Amino acid sequence: MSDTLRNLLDAVRYGAMSVEEALSHLAASSPSADALDFATLDHLRGERTGFGEVIYCPGKTDDQIASIAARLARASGIVLATRATESAFAAVRAQIADARFDREARVIVVERVPLPRVGSVAVVSAGTADRPVASEASACLDVMGNAVGRIDDVGVAGLHRVLGHVGALRSARAVVVIAGMDGALPSVVAGLTDKPVVAVPTSVGYGASFGGLAALLTMLNACAPGIAVVNIDNGYGAACVASRINHVGQ
Amino acid sequence: MSDTLRNLLDAVRYGAMSVEEALSHLAASSPSADALDFATLDHLRGERTGFGEVIYCPGKTDDQIASIAARLARASGIVLATRATESAFAAVRAQIADARFDREARVIVVERVPLPRVGSVAVVSAGTADRPVASEASACLDVMGNAVGRIDDVGVAGLHRVLGHVGALRSARAVVVIAGMDGALPSVVAGLTDKPVVAVPTSVGYGASFGGLAALLTMLNACAPGIAVVNIDNGYGAACVASRINHVGQ
Amino acid sequence: MSDTLRNLLDAVRYGAMSVEEALSHLAASSPSADALDFATLDHLRGERTGFGEVIYCPGKTDDQIASIAARLARASGIVLATRATESAFAAVRAQIADARFDREARVIVVERVPLPRVGSVAVVSAGTADRPVASEASACLDVMGNAVGRIDDVGVAGLHRVLGHVGALRSARAVVVIAGMDGALPSVVAGLTDKPVVAVPTSVGYGASFGGLAALLTMLNACAPGIAVVNIDNGYGAACVASRINHVGQ
Amino acid sequence: MSDTLRNLLDAVRYGAMSVEEALSHLAASSPSADALDFATLDHLRGERTGFGEVIYCPGKTDDQIASIAARLARASGIVLATRATESAFAAVRAQIADARFDREARVIVVERVPLPRVGSVAVVSAGTADRPVASEASACLDVMGNAVGRIDDVGVAGLHRVLGHVGALRSARAVVVIAGMDGALPSVVAGLTDKPVVAVPTSVGYGASFGGLAALLTMLNACAPGIAVVNIDNGYGAACVASRINHVGQ
Amino acid sequence: MSDTLRNLLDAVRYGAMSVEEALSHLAASSPSADALDFATLDHLRGERTGFGEVIYCPGKTDDQIASIAARLARASGIVLATRATESAFAAVRAQIADARFDREARVIVVERVPLPRVGSVAVVSAGTADRPVASEASACLDVMGNAVGRIDDVGVAGLHRVLGHVGALRSARAVVVIAGMDGALPSVVAGLTDKPVVAVPTSVGYGASFGGLAALLTMLNACAPGIAVVNIDNGYGAACVASRINHVGQ
Amino acid sequence: MSDTLRNLLDAVRYGAMSVEEALSHLAASSPSADALDFATLDHLRGERTGFGEVIYCPGKTDDQIASIAARLARASGIVLATRATESAFAAVRAQIADARFDREARVIVVERVPLPRVGSVAVVSAGTADRPVASEASACLDVMGNAVGRIDDVGVAGLHRVLGHVGALRSARAVVVIAGMDGALPSVVAGLTDKPVVAVPTSVGYGASFGGLAALLTMLNACAPGIAVVNIDNGYGAACVASRINHVGQ
Amino acid sequence: MSDTLRNLLDAVRYGAMSVEEALSHLAASSPSADALDFATLDHLRGERTGFGEVIYCPGKTDDQIASIAARLARASGIVLATRATESAFAAVRAQIADARFDREARVIVVERVPLPRVGSVAVVSAGTADRPVASEASACLDVMGNAVGRIDDVGVAGLHRVLGHVGALRSARAVVVIAGMDGALPSVVAGLTDKPVVAVPTSVGYGASFGGLAALLTMLNACAPGIAVVNIDNGYGAACVASRINHVGQ
Amino acid sequence: MSDTLRNLLDAVRYGAMSVEEALSHLAASSPSADALDFATLDHLRGERTGFGEVIYCPGKTDDQIASIAARLARASGIVLATRATESAFAAVRAQIADARFDREARVIVVERVPLPRVGSVAVVSAGTADRPVASEASACLDVMGNAVGRIDDVGVAGLHRVLGHVGALRSARAVVVIAGMDGALPSVVAGLTDKPVVAVPTSVGYGASFGGLAALLTMLNACAPGIAVVNIDNGYGAACVASRINHVGQ
Repeated sequence: MSDTLRNLLDAVRYGAMSVEEALSHLAASSPSADALDFATLDHLRGERTGFGEVIYCPGKTDDQIASIAARLARASGIVLATRATESAFAAVRAQIADARFDREARVIVVERVPLPRVGSVAVVSAGTADRPVASEASACLDVMGNAVGRIDDVGVAGLHRVLGHVGALRSARAVVVIAGMDGALPSVVAGLTDKPVVAVPTSVGYGASFGGLAALLTMLNACAPGIAVVNIDNGYGAACVASRINHVGQ
Repeated sequence: MSDTLRNLLDAVRYGAMSVEEALSHLAASSPSADALDFATLDHLRGERTGFGEVIYCPGKTDDQIASIAARLARASGIVLATRATESAFAAVRAQIADARFDREARVIVVERVPLPRVGSVAVVSAGTADRPVASEASACLDVMGNAVGRIDDVGVAGLHRVLGHVGALRSARAVVVIAGMDGALPSVVAGLTDKPVVAVPTSVGYGASFGGLAALLTMLNACAPGIAVVNIDNGYGAACVASRINHVGQ
Repeated sequence: MSDTLRNLLDAVRYGAMSVEEALSHLAASSPSADALDFATLDHLRGERTGFGEVIYCPGKTDDQIASIAARLARASGIVLATRATESAFAAVRAQIADARFDREARVIVVERVPLPRVGSVAVVSAGTADRPVASEASACLDVMGNAVGRIDDVGVAGLHRVLGHVGALRSARAVVVIAGMDGALPSVVAGLTDKPVVAVPTSVGYGASFGGLAALLTMLNACAPGIAVVNIDNGYGAACVASRINHVGQ
Repeated sequence: MSDTLRNLLDAVRYGAMSVEEALSHLAASSPSADALDFATLDHLRGERTGFGEVIYCPGKTDDQIASIAARLARASGIVLATRATESAFAAVRAQIADARFDREARVIVVERVPLPRVGSVAVVSAGTADRPVASEASACLDVMGNAVGRIDDVGVAGLHRVLGHVGALRSARAVVVIAGMDGALPSVVAGLTDKPVVAVPTSVGYGASFGGLAALLTMLNACAPGIAVVNIDNGYGAACVASRINHVGQ
Repeated sequence: MSDTLRNLLDAVRYGAMSVEEALSHLAASSPSADALDFATLDHLRGERTGFGEVIYCPGKTDDQIASIAARLARASGIVLATRATESAFAAVRAQIADARFDREARVIVVERVPLPRVGSVAVVSAGTADRPVASEASACLDVMGNAVGRIDDVGVAGLHRVLGHVGALRSARAVVVIAGMDGALPSVVAGLTDKPVVAVPTSVGYGASFGGLAALLTMLNACAPGIAVVNIDNGYGAACVASRINHVGQ
Repeated sequence: MSDTLRNLLDAVRYGAMSVEEALSHLAASSPSADALDFATLDHLRGERTGFGEVIYCPGKTDDQIASIAARLARASGIVLATRATESAFAAVRAQIADARFDREARVIVVERVPLPRVGSVAVVSAGTADRPVASEASACLDVMGNAVGRIDDVGVAGLHRVLGHVGALRSARAVVVIAGMDGALPSVVAGLTDKPVVAVPTSVGYGASFGGLAALLTMLNACAPGIAVVNIDNGYGAACVASRINHVGQ
Repeated sequence: MSDTLRNLLDAVRYGAMSVEEALSHLAASSPSADALDFATLDHLRGERTGFGEVIYCPGKTDDQIASIAARLARASGIVLATRATESAFAAVRAQIADARFDREARVIVVERVPLPRVGSVAVVSAGTADRPVASEASACLDVMGNAVGRIDDVGVAGLHRVLGHVGALRSARAVVVIAGMDGALPSVVAGLTDKPVVAVPTSVGYGASFGGLAALLTMLNACAPGIAVVNIDNGYGAACVASRINHVGQ
Repeated sequence: MSDTLRNLLDAVRYGAMSVEEALSHLAASSPSADALDFATLDHLRGERTGFGEVIYCPGKTDDQIASIAARLARASGIVLATRATESAFAAVRAQIADARFDREARVIVVERVPLPRVGSVAVVSAGTADRPVASEASACLDVMGNAVGRIDDVGVAGLHRVLGHVGALRSARAVVVIAGMDGALPSVVAGLTDKPVVAVPTSVGYGASFGGLAALLTMLNACAPGIAVVNIDNGYGAACVASRINHVGQ
């Protein structure tokens, strides 16, 4: 794993630390420790899973968000906070002058040493109401170091719309497809490309859409091969998968 | 309503029958009456709703099916029995020499005075496994007096398949679309035609298809206008709706 | 299809345009294109599916709604916006002086060259609380060019109410039936007429009505033939299906 | 409560028994006690709840059923066993010569001192496939001492059928209404009578009937007043409620 | 049925009215008619089902509620409005000086010729939070002409509480049992009495209580005989059933 | 059971009280009695189930909460109120000067004769958003007389975090594990300890977490042995179980 | 943890083994390793979680079951196989002469060095049909080294039955309560004892019991404190939890 | 797209074919055409989506499977049939001597010109019962041209098992993780690697696992980033996604 991790275990190997101490040190890098060194934490997460810790804002106070953001900014130079509100951004901005806010995506970003944008991910959405989720996916993919192409408003009710983008769907390294209501777009897209499709159901709809459940089931039962699904409205989750795909072999 | 019905009520009007007697006579035409005259019954149903009584076989013995079929055949010359088994057909055939059996559709038909086949209904299905439901719909539409066109194996995973039938979808008077798994085909079809689309989810699929529930929800949430839905695997139900549509104004 | 569409493909045929260009042009008529010509778009949608684009208001700002409405009004002379609020109407009215608002139906309408009202659609509702959905269906049917008859408050708890309208149910070309709670009305209506019944479950009810799910399941399992179902509270969707039925053969 | 119960507690009162002993004696009348005296048990249940213990056959061997039946027959002269099979009846018959078997109701009955049939309960069913449940309800009501009237095949798809029985529905002291598929019949019946309606959903149906769930929800959401619901296919349960109603004040 | 109804049909019999006219007259007594005579309407409902029309307030404006109440008060002298708010009561009070409001029950009542309180219904509730539903049931039972006894806070977690009321449970003619959370109280009560038990699940609870679904399922699956169930939180519905039971044979 | 209970029954034994009187006295200690002696009530509950009555605040007014708290404080010297708001605390504080409020846990506590803190319970939570539930569990365990150890933010996405606490998980007498989203933490913890694990799903999550249902199902299906589950977000319920476990044999 | 585990890590500490080798050794004790030494495996599991590996039979061939059982018998002298069939037992018996089979519990046991039976666990069941689950719980508890007391057929429909066992419920160290249908028994039991209650819903029931879901929800929502729940029909799972509870502090 | 496709459209461009003819030709390559040339079909599918048509056996007769397999074998030299039975294999073998059958995976394979095995996909499963799904995924990945590594029996109940494979999880290009019951394994794996994780819930489990629904929800709600999910038991579907990922950039 990471050098930090190996160093700890080497300390065990060379008698400099007991087994119990080694386990304690690992635990100490958990966010519950009092004297938390976030730089270390983030470093471990980034090495282990490809991208550092991300702030999921709901359930946190603006002050907590700003405080975590400030520490992550100092430690790694990169901050990504999702589902952020305007007031959370104000709190962050008060501490980090170069923070920026993508309002449609509800994402706060700080990038002091931006990751290079590599490869290519297509982000496709069915309707206007799906755009916030598409924007969240795009903004996250961007800061995670992926070149992103957006294709919006190509729902299956008017097939000519998606048929005009077949080239882009085939030349990307991964395709994120976002749709609510009937959730039929990924089935159509996966039949038009040979690239992996990450499908995101949205809660757009009413009545028997059951908050996105209908679209979720549609996507899990897609008759076209090459589709995997993330949680409802989870643009960030789709970005994580697509970014991992796009970085394979880069 | 029917002449029979009006005659009864006229009898009340002209003092030939009490109100209680009139209600009793109406009740007497119910199938639970001991001395049931099926011809009368069927006549009423046919006049009232456009097609006579249909035998739904599950839960009935072969003997019961054959006996009902024989009475309907004598009364109206037309028998339609759905979800029939081979042994049910044998029992019917023993009594009605000119009965025929569509094995894929699981439908028994007797037609002594066939209804004229009018108008045009397109029956479209997504995959091979959806064919029994498509055949049930087609066979029922046929005996109900509709000209039927079949379009099979045009699932959305290969869009070129359905795109090759746009002309047929637009020239029909009603379109029945049958699909399991993701149930996405009606959304695509309804965007290609201006005719009413009757969508039939099928129980084809596995895992999170939940016996057709996924396809049912997809269709209820279709993003294209002009779609209404019947019960899972209910080819007969779709035929009833499409036949009523096709006969409007004929 | 439409002349516009055929013209494009003819351009391919006569060498004036490459295949890729043709597909791109089709895509360019999608609403995501920057230089969107809504008139063209609407023209295509209307030709392809029988009625132009409709504005579904939820998730759009009042400004967006007014802007889209203005462009549709200029292009086709007909605007239909559903689930509209009072403030959305104010925004539209500021731009389109002849816009009108049906408050119970929550529908904004502009009609400069009204479609002729043809045929006949009966809109039947069970209880007072179902009226907004019935009004949405009626208002949409009206602007789509259908003669509409309303029958309200005829729930099955007092059967004499619906029995008094049998004539109207039989003389219409299509019947829309709207009910919440137990959703039993379509089963009764479909047994009284030979016309296609489009059933709309509403979210009226409480407890185990589960936001309209109970009524939806009732309608999908209706024991009377000739019923197809649209999504919960979807008066607009029912209007689309009924209008397509009513225009068949007109 | 019963004399037996009071006797025990009187024994406590007069010092003949400790509190712990009294509780132990009560426990000893439970069927898990080794030296079980079924006559006593049944006597208590009958006094406490209006009818003695009933044998629910599923999950019991034929021998167990026969053995319990024999003991109940000796103790009280009345045996009622529900959901019985042909082989269970054979086992019972071998021990109790005067046992009888209602095959459609799947009910075994022994009646040596029949309860007088009092009052009046109407048992109404919608379709042929609902008859086994209606027969279970009728057979149980009969042995529980109720006069029963059957009204079958009066589903709402043909309203004239139920309208012909309004008199019977109004003159009964309780009405049991049994229906599968859309489960709409209780809503109609409760609007035609002023008597309590016990609704029984059946598992008759397919697709989105979900084994009777659709009918269950319909009945719980009935728009007509005066309906209460028992479990799916639970003819016995409906009989218990209706018998209690019918015996009130007798 | 009622004299009004019979008079109409007699008019048919004696040639004074055509069949179509008779049906129209029946329809004219529906609340959708413009010149609605509520006295006639209520009279019919009361005769047919045992109690006149009840105003369910949600979805109606305060003005509508007050207007309907005024007409019902004039026609029959009895008004019952459920799920009423303080402002709805203010509107009613402005028109009907003798209207009263039970705030816990959320019920508005006007009684100019009170029905005699007959028989006996026990209303039993498990916890404090179930009291509003118990009060709705009690208030409705009262105005419907039933003598009511309340037993509150006797949940099964402390069995001695319900055991102290066995006498009352056995001497009532009907027992309404109201419980949320685990919904176990009806099972215990039905084992202690020989009277019919009307069980009302409430939405009291959290997490996996799913808004009362858990309690509803518990009650439908009760292991004690003699229980029937109404919709979640439906105190009014339980009152309708219990009142019908209590009036049988009175 | 308790002395109070035994005294009552002894009174029956020695003829000082009739059976009916004994049952009435038991009933009189229910909270619905007008002249409620809460000290008696609490005393019985505490003796019978190990801890006195707890105030669940939702659905009660601030005044009611304060009044009950004051009576419990006088009677037993211990008050525990869960899901309390700031204003409820203000009301309690006005009557009980030594009441304290744990804001994260939403718990009001009064302890005049604190129970000794015995044994050891570990309270483990997966993420920051699960902390309110963990705090409720901890605060309740504390006042119920348990020594509590907290381990927070040890979700399975970074396994090293929980692995650093194996010693604490094995030395506790009971382990409460709290997790939302995927609810996977109890499965991991139960594989690392030989102590009983009480799992608490939380409603933390979105989309297909369905308000905690996903985590609930995960925990019920845990592949590691030794896990039992309480209701969603039910920190208090987990504390009750863990406290009972921890007090066994103490 | 165990000596084996500590020895491995000590080897790292003293330089005898690299970190990678240590992790590999741990992995080698997984059952997927080719040269699997089951004795080692079981030893680790037993030390880590309190009881060795248990064979869950479904999905394994008789030969596989017999082979695993033989290895476990050699290694630890204790075998526990759940959900076993008669033929699986025959296969095991052919290899292990002293294996025994509890047919009602469907459990195969080999005990060469039986664990001492300590403490006390009460296993309580509601009805006859719940006995197989109760027997599985009892048999597993027995071989895991717990003294077990059985209390059967004490469903809440006849409260006197469970009231006669209050002493046993209070003197046990843990109580397992098993119930299907309404699942109400744990709520009653937990109100009668101060010991932890492990509730097991069973799939006994029909209709809206949904295979045990109704009982599961009842138990999760129990209004009495001190209850935690395991999966439907999971007698083994309840035994694991109860055994852990019973062994705390022994 | 493919040359075949481009040739058709070029024919339109150069006037050799009308637009209608071009669409008809495309439709003619659908499997519903009478004179179907499967080689052409497969060629199109392979070019468009990366792998040719796969035979899903359920719902097809053995003869149909053998006939389709023979045509695919002639056309492309590669056959993959999933969910095959022994008798289906016998039918295929009779026509294709070099067909082979992986019984655990239930997969029939013919490979005359095997695709080169490139990259690396790790297939990880939690328990023995998950092996058939893991084998289906592995067998499909193999024939689709991927190098596959299997890691079995590493469920989270014994964490040391999966921790011993961290290196393999990090060096693969894609990871497929298969788990039933609690479905917790993907959450753990995704926290240990930076590669995309394709999670497959299985129907392994009982009670509240609801046929895999519990595991499905767990995976959709995974707290670790980088996971996407396919349908329950869908090893083939996971292989399609993982193969597309593994081939990106190869």
